[in-house]
Amino acid sequence: MSLANHFELLGRDGDARTGLLTTAHGTVRTPAFMPVGTQGAMKGLQWQDVRDAGADIVLGNTYHLMLRPGAERIHELGGLQKFTRWGGPMLTDSGGFQVMSLAQLRKVKEQGVTFRSHIDGTAIELTPERAIEVQRLLGSDIAMQLDECVRLPAERGDIERAMQLSLRWAERSRRAFEGAPAANMLFGIVQGGDIPELRRTSACGLTGIGFHGYAIGGLAVGEPQATMLAMIEEAAPWLPMERPRYLMGVGTPHDLLEAVARGIDMFDCVMPTRNGRHGMAFTRFGQINLRNARHADDPRPLDEESSWPAARDYSRAYLHHLVRSGETLGAMLLSGINIAYYQSLMQAMRSAIAGGVFQEFRERTREGWARGDIASR
Amino acid sequence: MSLANHFELLGRDGDARTGLLTTAHGTVRTPAFMPVGTQGAMKGLQWQDVRDAGADIVLGNTYHLMLRPGAERIHELGGLQKFTRWGGPMLTDSGGFQVMSLAQLRKVKEQGVTFRSHIDGTAIELTPERAIEVQRLLGSDIAMQLDECVRLPAERGDIERAMQLSLRWAERSRRAFEGAPAANMLFGIVQGGDIPELRRTSACGLTGIGFHGYAIGGLAVGEPQATMLAMIEEAAPWLPMERPRYLMGVGTPHDLLEAVARGIDMFDCVMPTRNGRHGMAFTRFGQINLRNARHADDPRPLDEESSWPAARDYSRAYLHHLVRSGETLGAMLLSGINIAYYQSLMQAMRSAIAGGVFQEFRERTREGWARGDIASR
Ligand SMILES: [Zn+2]
Ligand SMILES: [Zn+2]
Repeated sequence: MSLANHFELLGRDGDARTGLLTTAHGTVRTPAFMPVGTQGAMKGLQWQDVRDAGADIVLGNTYHLMLRPGAERIHELGGLQKFTRWGGPMLTDSGGFQVMSLAQLRKVKEQGVTFRSHIDGTAIELTPERAIEVQRLLGSDIAMQLDECVRLPAERGDIERAMQLSLRWAERSRRAFEGAPAANMLFGIVQGGDIPELRRTSACGLTGIGFHGYAIGGLAVGEPQATMLAMIEEAAPWLPMERPRYLMGVGTPHDLLEAVARGIDMFDCVMPTRNGRHGMAFTRFGQINLRNARHADDPRPLDEESSWPAARDYSRAYLHHLVRSGETLGAMLLSGINIAYYQSLMQAMRSAIAGGVFQEFRERTREGWARGDIASR
Repeated sequence: MSLANHFELLGRDGDARTGLLTTAHGTVRTPAFMPVGTQGAMKGLQWQDVRDAGADIVLGNTYHLMLRPGAERIHELGGLQKFTRWGGPMLTDSGGFQVMSLAQLRKVKEQGVTFRSHIDGTAIELTPERAIEVQRLLGSDIAMQLDECVRLPAERGDIERAMQLSLRWAERSRRAFEGAPAANMLFGIVQGGDIPELRRTSACGLTGIGFHGYAIGGLAVGEPQATMLAMIEEAAPWLPMERPRYLMGVGTPHDLLEAVARGIDMFDCVMPTRNGRHGMAFTRFGQINLRNARHADDPRPLDEESSWPAARDYSRAYLHHLVRSGETLGAMLLSGINIAYYQSLMQAMRSAIAGGVFQEFRERTREGWARGDIASR
């Protein structure tokens, strides 16, 4: 039985797409970038900043939230949107990725994955069914199937085994999702590492099961950008045109631009906030390292044409000082500046696609990054 | 030659006073609490939050700023108010207190204090004249004389020597301040530890020299609250009624209430932001430890009657989760909540003094703190 479609494709320009995804907590304009609120909070930002920056939807990490404060507790407190007061659309991952990267003594079996919490060592089993249950308790608008993600480079045998296991887990996730509120969505995840044939097998298998949307997972895990883009090109043609496509854990502004050009609708990444905490700013001039001494006496803002006040109003000298001094305000301002830049990039891509000028926009944007930062004074 | 008076006493109620202090960057309503922006930033807060919370004036630490980014650099960038974009009135300390607590290999001589920077070990000499010059470069509205502050308990001989040295430095500071912009102010600092007679000698000596305002220093350095209040009572009668009085580095809400009752007009303390970073909230119910498990499932806000949105809107359960998870947002929200509570307390004291009901307000406020937090659910 095919699932209801909550995605409306508004326009296409080449392979690039723009559309609207409707959730119970609001509408998401695509292509969309989802800032990551790992533990139910955005590092260095108030929720109002995230909204003001232009984000329609954010991502919460199921692994973290199920360990602390606990999915049942969040359910009792009214769900993740109410608990955090973000209030808008939320996607939760399945927890699988963090289990692989953070948990101790993890063991992947057919039934699911067992591991020990990195916080207190509690033994926990995460099955496809429990991952759906947890996400239902959290109340996320978009749930992800549990999958197994293999870090690249890897042997073909390992990649194939994980991809096939992920397909079987996709089937079980889909069954476990029956009876969820009608507005909620479940996305399947294409695996298959860097092997084109496996990507196609995975995409076709998932399409056969049927999901509200399709993610491409297991990328941005160490492979070159060209490999990542090639895998998108392999998988995308096998995904239903009318369903949203989400590239997980990606990436740099350049990654976003190139992935949108290949038909991706949704992204998430910790890069804007993480790099912000390390003194890096994303701008139309490319990435700028505020730690660099060239900014120490520079009274000019990061970008006088930015629509984000902090990028326009504070001097590079002040931002440099905050970063060098380890002041929280530096991380706060740069995280906001970066999230706002990412959102302005998504907005500009949406407009360019709608206006049929995506290719020109793409070239102009890449040229801006390539020219680099304004000259020192 | 007596210095111009920029302070207007608007009302008195018992020994409590309310007034207005006029600076080149705006007017300060007293009694005033000055949040501390140690290194040119308020930890966990945007400047707009500080303003929205009701702060008229903030404090910058000369020691930190002279080491990084440097007073000459801040001067080149237009002064501390412009550099930080706080824009409003700023008081800078002399740097002496941090030299005593942070710097290495410090040596106090008649001429001044020599020390090595805690950042890079550079040898630096801070004299009364250099302290004034640095604060002039920073462009602070209110500069403090260099003094020597003795940690209590201490020997009478040590306290007296430091007090007399501070008086001679006061005289030199006053001379060094000649020629400063007419709107700028210089405050002398009463020393004398916990010895009433020395406090009086210090206060009289400073009044003889003549300053725009008078600080009481060397308190909140380990002595009981009763000693601190007794020292205020010793010094205050010897300070000119029409000049502002500033109790340095104080303190808890209870300290503020009792010091205002004894005629103090200005305060600064890192407590609201520092305690906020450690999960403590200041409220009309007293101090609340959000780390405590009793809050884990509590959907109620910290204080539904607070005028500060974060104290009213977020659940205790969410704040508890943020604190337990070490999320920056927890420190951000609690720092804001605490600064706002401090400012609302100052505003309430100003109104009570103006209305002649300070004593009733004082009792009611103490009763609220003594009753403690709302009952667990
Ligand atoms: Zn990423
Ligand atoms: Zn203090």
